[in-house]
Amino acid sequence: MSRVAPSILIIGSGLIGTSIGMAMSRAGADVYLIDRDPAVAARAEKLGGGRAALPSTDPDVVIVAVPPRDVAEVAAAALRDWPNATVTDVCSVKGGPMRALSATGADMSRWVGGHPMAGREVTGPDGARRELFNDRVWVVAPSDSASAERIAAVMNIALTCGATPVQMSADDHDRAVALTSHVPQVLSSVLAGRVGAASADHVQVSGQGLRDMTRIAASDPALWTEILSANPGPVRQALEGLIIDLEQVRDALAAADPGTLRDMLERGNEGRAAIPGKHGGESTEYDIVPVLIADEPGALSEVFVAAGGAGFNLEDVRIDHVLGRPSGLVEVSVRVGLGDALAAALRERGFDVRY
Amino acid sequence: MSRVAPSILIIGSGLIGTSIGMAMSRAGADVYLIDRDPAVAARAEKLGGGRAALPSTDPDVVIVAVPPRDVAEVAAAALRDWPNATVTDVCSVKGGPMRALSATGADMSRWVGGHPMAGREVTGPDGARRELFNDRVWVVAPSDSASAERIAAVMNIALTCGATPVQMSADDHDRAVALTSHVPQVLSSVLAGRVGAASADHVQVSGQGLRDMTRIAASDPALWTEILSANPGPVRQALEGLIIDLEQVRDALAAADPGTLRDMLERGNEGRAAIPGKHGGESTEYDIVPVLIADEPGALSEVFVAAGGAGFNLEDVRIDHVLGRPSGLVEVSVRVGLGDALAAALRERGFDVRY
Repeated sequence: MSRVAPSILIIGSGLIGTSIGMAMSRAGADVYLIDRDPAVAARAEKLGGGRAALPSTDPDVVIVAVPPRDVAEVAAAALRDWPNATVTDVCSVKGGPMRALSATGADMSRWVGGHPMAGREVTGPDGARRELFNDRVWVVAPSDSASAERIAAVMNIALTCGATPVQMSADDHDRAVALTSHVPQVLSSVLAGRVGAASADHVQVSGQGLRDMTRIAASDPALWTEILSANPGPVRQALEGLIIDLEQVRDALAAADPGTLRDMLERGNEGRAAIPGKHGGESTEYDIVPVLIADEPGALSEVFVAAGGAGFNLEDVRIDHVLGRPSGLVEVSVRVGLGDALAAALRERGFDVRY
Repeated sequence: MSRVAPSILIIGSGLIGTSIGMAMSRAGADVYLIDRDPAVAARAEKLGGGRAALPSTDPDVVIVAVPPRDVAEVAAAALRDWPNATVTDVCSVKGGPMRALSATGADMSRWVGGHPMAGREVTGPDGARRELFNDRVWVVAPSDSASAERIAAVMNIALTCGATPVQMSADDHDRAVALTSHVPQVLSSVLAGRVGAASADHVQVSGQGLRDMTRIAASDPALWTEILSANPGPVRQALEGLIIDLEQVRDALAAADPGTLRDMLERGNEGRAAIPGKHGGESTEYDIVPVLIADEPGALSEVFVAAGGAGFNLEDVRIDHVLGRPSGLVEVSVRVGLGDALAAALRERGFDVRY
């Protein structure tokens, strides 16, 4: 795979498949794409995803970009049909499909699973964007028998699409996403479910913390039913750990044992600090300066123009929701130590600063 | 309590006490404030929180603004010392302190508990701001024997401070905050704790969902140990419900039962929709337009100036963290249906739009 621009066959011309096709075509690769619905493949071709056709000889890499439940079957056929090609996929779960594929007797030495960690809320080729994978992690999970050259071929695609390839075993990947993606989804959904079942009076006293914790509870139930069902073992194991922790908190409350509560909260501090923040580095705490603005076009931009004009680089922004008022509380974050200066600069410019 | 500007004694000149003093002084009220540390009260006076002295006659309202563990004792003394005054507090838990107060034999007909739902990450009078309570909910939790006039006196203070008073029983309040504030804190902390205990490789694949879910895990362990310890019954009960839900998910994964998973996810959708969004109304889903910007002063403001200049009112903003790059992905939200137009307008102005 010494060529920078390999030949590629993409099976499945949906959002992810077409986005890869666009990025690889742009980089000069020979891209073919097909779909079980020829009209969808034709649409993908029209959008710049590649040629809606099969290649005449073995492509360097076949990318299986079909729904999770079809990956093993389609990949088995691809390994059979293209006996020299490296075959990869884009599925968000890696262990189950790989085991199912292996069980078909496929040539696993050419299998290098993949998971580009990017997506959009839309589906189909019309939602595709060639920049979709820029700066995202793309997990590369090869079979035990895949050669370094096969692995490099898939990494090359990730890099060409602008992503950062991260190699790990299929099982490691599934345990990682169980903890960092699948269990957070479950926690958010069950919390939101309990809040929804509470009286409206109770919900009225909710604050920003609850809104943060229930944001992903708005996710698509059909999609997430499939994702959770495809990764049952690791999700169960991670849930088991969480349940034990919650039972410990419950028991500490019953026993009036503040030491256990404090340990739990301190471990939370440490864990939060370990989660990659901006620029992939350690997460940083900022000075947060709240500013009340009118709810009208341009109101937000005035804050940013003023902050930028005064030489401040804003690290983060969030809009808090104001009860019963046509206004918004914007919280702008600057590096620790700069909060007072930013507040003063904004006040000087006439802003309603609550710092 | 027909006077708009009553006389007030604030006991405890910390962040909340001094902020109330500033807001009420500004509104023309006669404000006295004291603290067990006279230097702190003197500082609060200097900042405009009121007079650092005791009134010569009964104030209309005494506000007990001391830490949770001291509320009952200080409130009992206040009810004894000022036999005509209405006495309130600002504690984030209401049932325990009220029961402890009642057990002292205090005149409960003058007790109207309060909980202004606002705060800052700093403590002490120097962090005080008279705008702290603007647009925030201020729960008013009277004793069973408090008269409408006593309740109105406390509501008047909340309104004068710019807050929205919401009346509920002390037990209702504690159940509400257990579910909407205390349990979310526990979930965030235990999730972050488990993530912190995982290998760095696993944490590398985390995304925005995990960052949302662990944001409040950075909260102060000492403060939260006290809050959770002060509301043990309702927090335990709410945790019990969550544990049952999580066990159901775990069992559904073991039984390969997608129906239960889907029900859970759909209840999450409904619950999320019930949480007050902007303007206290129902939460709305937006079109989210991602734009890649350079990490330098003014870069953010350019996006907002362009959006505002094109006539778009941005509903929300978040900055996604880009792996290993000196740039940021800004996600700006507009009302559903406007995403394409905003993306086109920003592209036209030279922005790197990923929509």
